[in-house]
Amino acid sequence: MPYKLYYWDGIPGRGEFVRLALEEAGADYVDVARDPDGQEGGTTAMLKLLMDGEGANIPFAPPFLKDGDLLIPHVANILFYLGPKIGLAPEEEGLRFVANGLQLTITDFVAEIHDTHHPIGVSLYYEDQKPEALRRSSDFLSERLPKFLGYFERVLRQNPKGQNPKAQNPKGRGHIVGDRLSYVDLSLFQLVEGLRYAFPKAMRSYEASIPGLIALHDAVAERPNIRSYLASDRRLSFNEAGIFRHYPELDQPS
Amino acid sequence: MPYKLYYWDGIPGRGEFVRLALEEAGADYVDVARDPDGQEGGTTAMLKLLMDGEGANIPFAPPFLKDGDLLIPHVANILFYLGPKIGLAPEEEGLRFVANGLQLTITDFVAEIHDTHHPIGVSLYYEDQKPEALRRSSDFLSERLPKFLGYFERVLRQNPKGQNPKAQNPKGRGHIVGDRLSYVDLSLFQLVEGLRYAFPKAMRSYEASIPGLIALHDAVAERPNIRSYLASDRRLSFNEAGIFRHYPELDQPS
Repeated sequence: MPYKLYYWDGIPGRGEFVRLALEEAGADYVDVARDPDGQEGGTTAMLKLLMDGEGANIPFAPPFLKDGDLLIPHVANILFYLGPKIGLAPEEEGLRFVANGLQLTITDFVAEIHDTHHPIGVSLYYEDQKPEALRRSSDFLSERLPKFLGYFERVLRQNPKGQNPKAQNPKGRGHIVGDRLSYVDLSLFQLVEGLRYAFPKAMRSYEASIPGLIALHDAVAERPNIRSYLASDRRLSFNEAGIFRHYPELDQPS
Repeated sequence: MPYKLYYWDGIPGRGEFVRLALEEAGADYVDVARDPDGQEGGTTAMLKLLMDGEGANIPFAPPFLKDGDLLIPHVANILFYLGPKIGLAPEEEGLRFVANGLQLTITDFVAEIHDTHHPIGVSLYYEDQKPEALRRSSDFLSERLPKFLGYFERVLRQNPKGQNPKAQNPKGRGHIVGDRLSYVDLSLFQLVEGLRYAFPKAMRSYEASIPGLIALHDAVAERPNIRSYLASDRRLSFNEAGIFRHYPELDQPS
């Protein structure tokens, strides 16, 4: 039975971190809201599950994954669950918690990226919070972006197993946890993609400081399953309804 | 060997969600930054681990737990790891991912609670972002607080196993996941405590809408290990350096 991924149609958003793992693994899955022949009920089915007034274990928000009877919400939780099943988690159990810790730092970073354009409230439009967004983005680019990306760069450099020659891909690039590709590497790829879209000026000035992350990004982009996914119409473009939004007025060199 | 919990001294903060689980379970642990005889090196030891320029798997921020050689960061990750070991996770493996999903919704809610007083940047003082904090708190109290607490109330009500008479405590109160106490119940207790401290007016007007959560809070407070912990000097008071801060100007009926 295929995994069923429930997420909003029209934006890559948080769902994309899960899609990348499913695509890299070649897993059998249905993207319910984007289901072409509508057998799964699309967005209506997703909303029905969320609003279910009797069901047990209802999620707070998309994305969530359905595997049989089990409903699993939150990106990091979905990836923790899926990782070992689809060969994208470390073999060693302790390292799985390390991977989850890294994914949760990505989760926090993604929330802060979202809040650059929504510092006051998700129920308001960007247009209703522009001065605050400008102030928050400025703090984000000067303080938080270097702090988070610098951290990931450091973990990548200090991962003793990531430098294992046997585990390196042909270009000598490492992995952030353990000695092989994990879902965390794929999420870091997506972070770089999203930040380049949202803050091109900031990223142009900052990327020289994070050579390991950029090399990892490039190595992920070259993987056969990822390359064919990126070229397919299953890969959605970034846009101004998602998490990573490009508002030129918020972007400045980091 | 005792678990070692690393977190800032002086605030309950995010560390408190872990402390409550360790205390309820009667687990052997050291609260490193508050270690009375300083054998563990206190806050200095914590900062040294965070800034370690060579170590593998370094955390981004406190809290983190050390179990032998393993360093585990992020509250939800620590609780996912500890839960089964200290008898505070569901027996059934699928339900452990449900518990983790609920804990991650609590994580998101806690981040939003923090941002009511820090909507622009963590590197700035509250005094530098007061008008924005007022606007964000107003949105938080009218939109987000009812949404999150209403969600937990609903999950509690709809948990089929939570109503199992065998699992109920003498007052007939349920649990949020599975048929017994889990770390998620303890975290919900702490949420109610923190919100009552930070937003007493809002909570006074809203608590009648969440009778299940309040009953769960009261049941947790009456558990022998929790009661003696709350009366001890290990339990830190809320204050204006933590996540739950009481700024009267931000509080209003919800």
